[in-house]
Amino acid sequence: MPGKKSVELSGVVVARSAVSSIDPDQGVLMYRGYDIRDLAEQSTYEEVCYLLLHGELPTPDQLGEFDMLLTTQRKLPAEAIRAVDDAAGKAVPMAALRTAVSALSYADPDGEANDEEAEKRKAARLIAQLPTAIARFDRRRRGLDPIDPKPELGIAPNLLWMLRGEEPSEDEARAIDVSFILHAEHEMNASTFTARVVAGTNADLHSAVVAAICALKGPLHGGANEGVMALLERIGSVDRVEGEVHGILERKEKLHGLGHPLYRALDPRAPILKEIARRFSEQANGDEAKWYAMTERLEEFAHAEKGLWPNVDLYSGSVFHYLGIPTDLFTPLFAASRVVGWVAHVIEQHRDNRIIRPSAEYVGPEPRPFPVSTPR
Amino acid sequence: MPGKKSVELSGVVVARSAVSSIDPDQGVLMYRGYDIRDLAEQSTYEEVCYLLLHGELPTPDQLGEFDMLLTTQRKLPAEAIRAVDDAAGKAVPMAALRTAVSALSYADPDGEANDEEAEKRKAARLIAQLPTAIARFDRRRRGLDPIDPKPELGIAPNLLWMLRGEEPSEDEARAIDVSFILHAEHEMNASTFTARVVAGTNADLHSAVVAAICALKGPLHGGANEGVMALLERIGSVDRVEGEVHGILERKEKLHGLGHPLYRALDPRAPILKEIARRFSEQANGDEAKWYAMTERLEEFAHAEKGLWPNVDLYSGSVFHYLGIPTDLFTPLFAASRVVGWVAHVIEQHRDNRIIRPSAEYVGPEPRPFPVSTPR
Repeated sequence: MPGKKSVELSGVVVARSAVSSIDPDQGVLMYRGYDIRDLAEQSTYEEVCYLLLHGELPTPDQLGEFDMLLTTQRKLPAEAIRAVDDAAGKAVPMAALRTAVSALSYADPDGEANDEEAEKRKAARLIAQLPTAIARFDRRRRGLDPIDPKPELGIAPNLLWMLRGEEPSEDEARAIDVSFILHAEHEMNASTFTARVVAGTNADLHSAVVAAICALKGPLHGGANEGVMALLERIGSVDRVEGEVHGILERKEKLHGLGHPLYRALDPRAPILKEIARRFSEQANGDEAKWYAMTERLEEFAHAEKGLWPNVDLYSGSVFHYLGIPTDLFTPLFAASRVVGWVAHVIEQHRDNRIIRPSAEYVGPEPRPFPVSTPR
Repeated sequence: MPGKKSVELSGVVVARSAVSSIDPDQGVLMYRGYDIRDLAEQSTYEEVCYLLLHGELPTPDQLGEFDMLLTTQRKLPAEAIRAVDDAAGKAVPMAALRTAVSALSYADPDGEANDEEAEKRKAARLIAQLPTAIARFDRRRRGLDPIDPKPELGIAPNLLWMLRGEEPSEDEARAIDVSFILHAEHEMNASTFTARVVAGTNADLHSAVVAAICALKGPLHGGANEGVMALLERIGSVDRVEGEVHGILERKEKLHGLGHPLYRALDPRAPILKEIARRFSEQANGDEAKWYAMTERLEEFAHAEKGLWPNVDLYSGSVFHYLGIPTDLFTPLFAASRVVGWVAHVIEQHRDNRIIRPSAEYVGPEPRPFPVSTPR
């Protein structure tokens, strides 16, 4: 397989999947055949979780049962509580989440079982538990008491409640729910691929999810939404956007939130998040309106200069910021929503599993004898 | 990329690497140009670690400095101690190791730095710390006090000391050192590939190693050595080997320790471990000699029936067993030695990094409209 491109695996088909599909030329993303624009408008995160895990939208009864399962599993077992509390103030949030999810496996009633029903039950627990772990970590590191989940709130709005201790407005609740829907799944991205490679060894679901968190942590993947916010904070005002971005493009540095390895058109998630950010910016106090304005200027300038399109990370930063979420929790929130996509792929991988074991092209030293006089 | 084979990535070149090379037809494995048969005979695990990390064998001065670095870093920081103690008796060993390595990142003096020198220092810490974490976990779950590392013992023999509380004999020390040398690296296997995919997002070294542990945990990968021992225990005696293995082959079940996705000849690690197991069996008391005899019978029968060759896992089980290591620690020991190979690949990946982001072939439902009457 000569050539740089194949060595990078970019665009190489590594699995068959029925979970989601991307049309990179039209800028369309579908979860199991449903356009994410329809889902963002008409669905809830819980419905989307059910759809991704089970393949079909739930009936009202199925949704009620699934909601009940999620609502009753939000509290953390003792091992995960200790893992979170011990990480607070010491670990970066994604490292804390990595440890917490690893510890969540110990007490899971389905243990190491890899059958599909067990994995669906474990999935429901992880979807319910991750937000609780993230909120607890943040409260603890700020020296505040953790807040118990509120059962009448959905998974995503409940995370806002547990972080802030005040109920989100209807607008805020819908905004975070839509963010969770848009981040839930995205075909064979690096973290999902990691989850499938791990699942390919017949390792258990928690191992696959921990490994996916490890991959999402990287600034070229999930960490990009934090990179966008850090860039906006560094730029500081709308009139400085062009100069700063011009410099970044000149120096060929990474410009987070723009461009995508797949899409040759607009990432369909970007305009939905952009519209939410725009609405929040109109209600924002004083200087806070600038985040949306800066992001929009950044988008226009990068497109005019280099033909770059915004991706999901460009506006999710502003949305999360307007929701009062600390910048270093943006990637953990991405993980809390993407976990359902990871699980859907692990279930698919385990259904007809073969180990994923590629090869390398050797470019090292020629065979050589071990020195007669050993160096020790 | 149509065709089943390419979808599995088996044999597909996904990276260029100078770390190790495999000749599948001749059954040769080389670390940076050195035949592992030479290394197993003439080298130490510490020298091999240096070779894999730095690309060349160390001079006596370099080895002395490297040894000092390893020897002084064996104790665990407080967060990892709590992670290990909290997992003891609750978690399976590989889940405990996953959590412990995640917690090891918090206090690492090089933090999230991805430059090569920082990664080499982090590597030395991980090579030194993993055995301590494994031994502490085992002592704690057995209700015993942990044993401090003995600085005058090498990394691998010191693990035996910390597990058992008695110094290994010269034979035992050499046996575990050779096992560590043979398990240190193996090109683009599933856990190493996982580490590279995670590193490809520019995530940090601890994240890449945690993810690799997740992959190694699977029974189709590192878990196979435990599978061999479990099979031997189930069979119980030499005269029952043929009947049992015949049944496994008939039912097309997985036969751990035999066959390899790459080698079309003898895995060169197998005969070295076989010879060690043979020597231990000659000194073994009473019934204990049978493990070697059963394994040899298993090898001969599977080869005669199906042309299967033994791989590294077939005899490593017996060797570890003769060294008094509990069966469920075989895979953690594999991790403790393979960590150096993972790090060598992460350093290589970070040197000229591009994200590893393949694609999937969509085989799901056709585009469909969201139902007008939503199910909620």
